[in-house]
Amino acid sequence: MIKIAVDAMGGDNAPLEIVKGSVKFVNEYKNAKLYLFGDETAVKNVLGTLNYNNEQIEVIHTTEIIENEEKPTIAIKEKKDSSLVQAIKMVKSGEASGVISAGSTGALLTGATVMLGRIKGVKRPTLVTMIPAAKGKKFLLADSGANVDSKPEYVAQFAVLASIYAEKMLGIKNPTVGLVNVGVEEEKGDTFTKEAFVALKQEKINFVGNVEAREIPLAAVDIVVCDGFVGNVVLKLYEGLGKMFKGELESSLRSRVSSKIGYLFARKSLNGLKDTLSTKDSGGAPLIGLKGLAVKAHGNSKEHAFYTGLKECYYFIEKDITKDFENYFAKGERNE
Amino acid sequence: MIKIAVDAMGGDNAPLEIVKGSVKFVNEYKNAKLYLFGDETAVKNVLGTLNYNNEQIEVIHTTEIIENEEKPTIAIKEKKDSSLVQAIKMVKSGEASGVISAGSTGALLTGATVMLGRIKGVKRPTLVTMIPAAKGKKFLLADSGANVDSKPEYVAQFAVLASIYAEKMLGIKNPTVGLVNVGVEEEKGDTFTKEAFVALKQEKINFVGNVEAREIPLAAVDIVVCDGFVGNVVLKLYEGLGKMFKGELESSLRSRVSSKIGYLFARKSLNGLKDTLSTKDSGGAPLIGLKGLAVKAHGNSKEHAFYTGLKECYYFIEKDITKDFENYFAKGERNE
Repeated sequence: MIKIAVDAMGGDNAPLEIVKGSVKFVNEYKNAKLYLFGDETAVKNVLGTLNYNNEQIEVIHTTEIIENEEKPTIAIKEKKDSSLVQAIKMVKSGEASGVISAGSTGALLTGATVMLGRIKGVKRPTLVTMIPAAKGKKFLLADSGANVDSKPEYVAQFAVLASIYAEKMLGIKNPTVGLVNVGVEEEKGDTFTKEAFVALKQEKINFVGNVEAREIPLAAVDIVVCDGFVGNVVLKLYEGLGKMFKGELESSLRSRVSSKIGYLFARKSLNGLKDTLSTKDSGGAPLIGLKGLAVKAHGNSKEHAFYTGLKECYYFIEKDITKDFENYFAKGERNE
Repeated sequence: MIKIAVDAMGGDNAPLEIVKGSVKFVNEYKNAKLYLFGDETAVKNVLGTLNYNNEQIEVIHTTEIIENEEKPTIAIKEKKDSSLVQAIKMVKSGEASGVISAGSTGALLTGATVMLGRIKGVKRPTLVTMIPAAKGKKFLLADSGANVDSKPEYVAQFAVLASIYAEKMLGIKNPTVGLVNVGVEEEKGDTFTKEAFVALKQEKINFVGNVEAREIPLAAVDIVVCDGFVGNVVLKLYEGLGKMFKGELESSLRSRVSSKIGYLFARKSLNGLKDTLSTKDSGGAPLIGLKGLAVKAHGNSKEHAFYTGLKECYYFIEKDITKDFENYFAKGERNE
């Protein structure tokens, strides 16, 4: 049985879409069990409208909710009975193997890191996000915002964790790793990035060198690594530009009569394009390197996105990828 | 008379498009004089096919060219008779007031900084790029790649230089300045960015706080400031994503018969959109804070883009913006 703790109160559409996504998931994955943490009445009200095997979902009542605006370190300490803290606690106790939340990213990262603890040898866990690229390709971004003020050796570890993840979880054999830099040559970059380059060369990964930001959307490499500050800029600029592009596309198609007619013909393709560029349905971003799995679902997750995030938790746990991380950091070996 | 030194051999389309852009410029700006540095035969071959007042263009023969692949510090030292070094030298001597090149960014930045020298009080010059944003708006990015390993106080100076530039050159009254960060709250970010925040608050500028990368394409602020490493990532990701969007748009419109028909109707709007997202025609990026002006034109500049870059040089010199910089850093005052 795969057991996952769910923060049913986190995210813009909680608990409604979280509960719906959870039910959709258990109806497909019969050997999974979900623990929904949140306001019992609110969660059960939604559950009452849906059909599912009630042995697969258990509701655990909590009285508090951590909001996005709260300072993570304080919220985690003070809101002991929040849906998020209680959900993480269940992973700590070993009753569940993973936790997922569409709520405060900072609170999830802080709470999971503090409460679950790092795998022996891992200096910082990394948040890994799958991002759409040109021609239907995708790439993983690590670290996508969990660690600002990284040290160069952390970045090398992000690359190791993401490489194992990409290989085991996504089936990418010997995934290529590129370091975000201002030029491709080895001597380019600031002090930090030059040192990270050296550290990356020492790891047993397929490090192919620097990647300039303009190459990132071409999925020039399978895994893009950087400090979390830069990763956060990459991730959010991606979002912002995707939104801008969609907006400009729509307004340019509304601007002339001929364009409106054109839109009617090209509608399917253009809507498909907008979906391709969206990161909304991409499920979750796992925080990896801890003694248990924590997955951040997108804040505006609806049923399908949350269901996708749960599937990712499921396979991560089923494949026991945490064990692969432990082996690498204990013995310096990649399991094949 | 406004005098500008032109590196006629720099860029993908040199000298042809550089010379054509120069001629287009002098034919419009009758009180300007251009000094074209480069291979005399090659440059005069192009000039010979064009009509212009030959008192406005002087060709100065040089025997060397600095390539993009060369290490800037070495190239500047060793290729004394390169078109770029000679052009910068003319600004140093005071015969010209500005230099423009579509060649190696690194060589221009290094050469101009070393040879022209910084304005008293300016710790680092900054490269400022104008970037298209949503709804026809634009913003300035400083630093867009000249300075990696910045100190927090440099970032505050970038903001000052860019604010004066935006006000005098672009007519934006009291331009808003935002600091690239991972969150909007003052306490967010890495150590560097938190210190930059404090330094920015002390300058006489319209600093409005942090800006997340997702807000950048909305032109949430007039001036986006950051270290040059982050700025380079922002700039290049912009380019890369713009290219990806255009590619996806084209392929999605080729994918169905109905879409092809739709494209015929919407062609004008869609081509307009592609132009909007392009940075190709945006002219040049000035390196400001030096005792003379240096402008980097886009490497793939054609006639119109180079002409636009020359116009920017022209107005910068005409408005004597360097004097405004000097005043601020000498007296801590903005000229109104």
